[in-house]
Amino acid sequence: MRVKHKPWAKEKLAKHPDIFVSEPEKWKGKWRELFQNDHPIHIEIGSGKGQFVSGMAKQNPEINYIGIEVVESVLVSALDKVMDAGVMNAKLLSIDGALLGEYFEPGEIGRLYLNFSDPWPKKRHTKRRLTNPRFLKIYQSLLKNPGEIHFKTDNRGLFEYSLTAFSEFGLLLTYVSLDLHNSNFENNVMTEYEEKFSQKGFPIYRLEAQFDRES
Amino acid sequence: MRVKHKPWAKEKLAKHPDIFVSEPEKWKGKWRELFQNDHPIHIEIGSGKGQFVSGMAKQNPEINYIGIEVVESVLVSALDKVMDAGVMNAKLLSIDGALLGEYFEPGEIGRLYLNFSDPWPKKRHTKRRLTNPRFLKIYQSLLKNPGEIHFKTDNRGLFEYSLTAFSEFGLLLTYVSLDLHNSNFENNVMTEYEEKFSQKGFPIYRLEAQFDRES
Ligand SMILES: C[S@@+](CC[C@H](N)C(=O)[O-])C[C@H]1O[C@@H](n2cnc3c(N)ncnc32)[C@H](O)[C@@H]1O
Ligand SMILES: C[S@@+](CC[C@H](N)C(=O)[O-])C[C@H]1O[C@@H](n2cnc3c(N)ncnc32)[C@H](O)[C@@H]1O
Repeated sequence: MRVKHKPWAKEKLAKHPDIFVSEPEKWKGKWRELFQNDHPIHIEIGSGKGQFVSGMAKQNPEINYIGIEVVESVLVSALDKVMDAGVMNAKLLSIDGALLGEYFEPGEIGRLYLNFSDPWPKKRHTKRRLTNPRFLKIYQSLLKNPGEIHFKTDNRGLFEYSLTAFSEFGLLLTYVSLDLHNSNFENNVMTEYEEKFSQKGFPIYRLEAQFDRES
Repeated sequence: MRVKHKPWAKEKLAKHPDIFVSEPEKWKGKWRELFQNDHPIHIEIGSGKGQFVSGMAKQNPEINYIGIEVVESVLVSALDKVMDAGVMNAKLLSIDGALLGEYFEPGEIGRLYLNFSDPWPKKRHTKRRLTNPRFLKIYQSLLKNPGEIHFKTDNRGLFEYSLTAFSEFGLLLTYVSLDLHNSNFENNVMTEYEEKFSQKGFPIYRLEAQFDRES
C-alpha cells in the first residue's frame, strides 16, 4: 500500500498522544496498562474516518476500542471524531492489519471488526482481502477464545468470498444478515461507507463468526 | 401438511409408472436397478411443477434425477414436464422429504437439491424448514461422501438461517451467490418460483455445501 506522506497529518496526530498511539510496539502485551483497566479490547481494522470506532466507544464504555488505519491523513479525521465523542476508551494506531502480531500478544484481542474493507475484486489480489486465510490465521492467533470477527460490507463479491473462506477456515457463522438495514439488528453503529452505500439503496451485508467451534 | 386428495391426480400418475414411482419403498437400496445404470442419483426435495428436475435431466443425461413432492396435484404438472422433456433419467415420487430414510439406503444419494423451499418464517416453525438440523441429519445419513446440498431461494430470512444452520452443523460452504442472476454461474436451470421472483427483480440466493469436511 502506497502511503502519501502528509507531514501535517503526522504533526496533528502527534499532538494527541492520549488518542493516537505513536509507538504501538511498546504496548505489546500491555494494552491494559495503557487503558488503565482490564476491559476487553475490540479492534477495527481499516477504520477510515473513525465514525464507527468513536460511535462504538461512546455506546459501550465498558469496552476498549482500537482503530487501525494505514492512511494517516484519514486517521486525522478519526482523531477529530474520537475527540468530538469525548470518550476515553478509544485509541488510534497507524499500522497495517497484516502486522497485528507485532503489536499484540496472543489472547490480547477480544474481537475484530472489519467494516467495508477494500474488496480487491481481482482474482490475483485475493490474498490482499482482509478476510483471506492469510489474515484469518493472524486473527486466530491473537484473539482470545472464543474469538469473534464482526464483518459488514456493501460489496457482494467480498461477502460471498468471505462466507466460503470463513467456512473453509473452520470458523463458525453465528449471525448473517443480507440486508442489515431491513433486519431487526439493534444498536447498529454506521460507518461512513455504510451511510453512503445504504443511502444509495444497496443492501448492507453483515456477519459474525467465531474461531472456537467448541465454545 | 394437509394434502387435498385429488383422485384425478392419482389416476394420471398411475398411468405413467416409467416416471411416477408409486411404491418407492420397494426400491430402497435398489434404485440403480430401477434406473438400469449406476449413474449418481440426485434428488430434489419439493420439486413443485418439475421444471428444474426435468430441465436438469435433459441437461445432464449421465445423472439420474428424482423429484420428490408431497402434493400430488402439483406432481402431475411435473409429470407433464418430464414427459415433454422426453428424458429417461427422471423419476417422481409422492413422498415427504422428512421420511427419505424409509426409501433410500445410506450412501444411495449423490446430491440433494432444495429449491425455493417453503420458508416457514415464524420462529415456532423453525423445525419445519428443510434446512433445519433435523433434516440435515437425515440428509447426512443418506448422502454418499462427500455429500452435497445445492440450495437456492429468493427468501432472505431462510437463506440467512440456512447459512448459520449449515455452519453450526459443520457443513462446509463451497459456493455462495447472493445474486445468482447477476453472477457468472453457468448452466443454471430455473425453477418456476425462480422465474417468478427473479422477474420481479428479487435477488436469487444460492449456495453449495458439503458434509464431508475432510474431502
Ligand atoms: C473502504 S475503506 C472503509 C473505511 C471505514 N471502515 C468505513 O466503513 O467507512 C477501507 C479502509 O481500510 C484501510 N485499510 C486497508 N487495508 C488496511 C490494512 N491492511 N490495515 C489497516 N488499514 C487498512 C484503508 O486505508 C481504508 O481507509
Ligand atoms: C415453494 S414450492 C417450490 C417449488 C419448486 N421447487 C420451485 O422452485 O418452483 C415448495 C414445494 O415443496 C413442497 N414440499 C414442502 N415440504 C416438502 C416435504 N417435506 N417433502 C416434499 N415436498 C415438500 C411443497 O409441496 C411445494 O410444492
